[in-house]
Amino acid sequence: MTILFKADSVVSGAEKWRATLKQRLPDMAFRTSDEPGDPADVEYVLCFRATPGTFTGMTNLKAILATGAGVDGLFLDPGLPECPIARIVDPWMAEQMVGWSVYAVHHFYRRFGDYAALQAEGTWFEYDDWEAAPPKVGLLGYGAIGAKVGAALQALRFDVATWTRSPRDIPGVASFSGPDGLMAFLGQTHFLICLLPLTPETEGILNARTLAALPKPAYLINLARGGHVVTADLVQALQSGTLAGAFLDVTEPEPLPPGHPLWSMPNVRITPHCSGPTNAATAADQVADNIRRAEAGRPMLNLVDRGRRY
Amino acid sequence: MTILFKADSVVSGAEKWRATLKQRLPDMAFRTSDEPGDPADVEYVLCFRATPGTFTGMTNLKAILATGAGVDGLFLDPGLPECPIARIVDPWMAEQMVGWSVYAVHHFYRRFGDYAALQAEGTWFEYDDWEAAPPKVGLLGYGAIGAKVGAALQALRFDVATWTRSPRDIPGVASFSGPDGLMAFLGQTHFLICLLPLTPETEGILNARTLAALPKPAYLINLARGGHVVTADLVQALQSGTLAGAFLDVTEPEPLPPGHPLWSMPNVRITPHCSGPTNAATAADQVADNIRRAEAGRPMLNLVDRGRRY
Repeated sequence: MTILFKADSVVSGAEKWRATLKQRLPDMAFRTSDEPGDPADVEYVLCFRATPGTFTGMTNLKAILATGAGVDGLFLDPGLPECPIARIVDPWMAEQMVGWSVYAVHHFYRRFGDYAALQAEGTWFEYDDWEAAPPKVGLLGYGAIGAKVGAALQALRFDVATWTRSPRDIPGVASFSGPDGLMAFLGQTHFLICLLPLTPETEGILNARTLAALPKPAYLINLARGGHVVTADLVQALQSGTLAGAFLDVTEPEPLPPGHPLWSMPNVRITPHCSGPTNAATAADQVADNIRRAEAGRPMLNLVDRGRRY
Repeated sequence: MTILFKADSVVSGAEKWRATLKQRLPDMAFRTSDEPGDPADVEYVLCFRATPGTFTGMTNLKAILATGAGVDGLFLDPGLPECPIARIVDPWMAEQMVGWSVYAVHHFYRRFGDYAALQAEGTWFEYDDWEAAPPKVGLLGYGAIGAKVGAALQALRFDVATWTRSPRDIPGVASFSGPDGLMAFLGQTHFLICLLPLTPETEGILNARTLAALPKPAYLINLARGGHVVTADLVQALQSGTLAGAFLDVTEPEPLPPGHPLWSMPNVRITPHCSGPTNAATAADQVADNIRRAEAGRPMLNLVDRGRRY
């Protein structure tokens, strides 16, 4: 069978994928989207972000293996075929996102950015405005990754609340849901962590109106998708002081172009969509397993609901 | 009774201490070392770092309440009286040190410093040299705080080892001890976290010889005391590449003077001895309780062993 691997700015590493999949599926033919070949040969596509034309001529496509936990990038292509789509659900990736989130929360909570600025001028000075109460973290989204981030922050004695589309009952966590619950959730959140899937319902959910609902000071931590945030509103909220800081692993546009104002704003930290890397060493087993399942006519694991888009 | 509070560059906030202790001990007289008064009145001293003369004339001193978890600063004074000494054992302080440690480990493990440098030049670039194996953290010291730091890092899927003076048996942790175990411990530690008490035995334990025993790359994270490290050897190890980075909450000398080379070395982050603040709101209860105990002739809690100096 032929597997086509499409790289982009988020998921690359074609040669690692070729080597790890070859060990697991010795009979496969592995082709990157840069290599020539008949699209009619392709039965499986590994892809994070589809562009119009990605699937043209793939008349024998059996399944799409998304190379990320979120699949919004596939729906950018109006020609997305009707075959099954599976996504990555990788504990290692989730752990990486937990670590990234914990770092980002502490960056603001413990003023590490302010201390870096003092270090740059060679000044030894301690801010002593700490409080004893646990800081309030709010998780937008509470899927497999959100639950791990929430549990890690609870273990570190943060006061965790969540907002989800449908009501949830989570022990020890203040749970908000639905459009009505969103503003109340935001109103009590000092450290807002976005972990939502990007869907038509969640696109632009963080905008001038919702950011203004946060208390002061509040910080945005986004490791979901740039499209959750209206970038112009974010820049404005940071400039006006509505928002005290932002730690962004994802941006809109992405990659963030040179000279974009977010690069150089004080109290903004940016990483290049690396919070939860797609790692061939940890994710190839489930990709190979799903291909074997599809070949055997069994359902793949971690299937995407096309209606919900996650 | 009269309590004297001595501030320094690490523990200050006399007015917070005055207010919180007044609530708990309404009959006390609270005096700072800047305020005039007869030293013979002083029955209790709250103090982080003693200087020669601190206790002169205190003929009625009943106890010293150290305002930190470590008491090495008291032994700087050759005139330290022979009365009982208690130290702070505050869960809130320990939690703060856990958070600081977790941030510092992730700073290097996840290359946040490298990404900050890329951000400064407006470059979107992902390092993709991650590995799947848990990174190896080594804890120098495993007291009440070290145990919490170790447990938090284990929960975050780090591979934790410890080195202690006497052999310890800690589930799931590779335990090294004694002078013979130190080099073996260092040889397998990529992220070295120093949480030792500062005693004549541990002073200068991190020097050219021991730093050279670390594998490459290795990172030093020190939130114990600056005196654990031979500063000139640290600077040399960072310059030569023996050490890939250092995250320091404590330095020798401390405060680190303006213009000191550590301020501006690449891959060095410095915070001003703020990893585990002494917070009157969380620590005053145990100080007041110890004073009540001493007044009632009962033994204080968290007593310091003068022989071991912790």
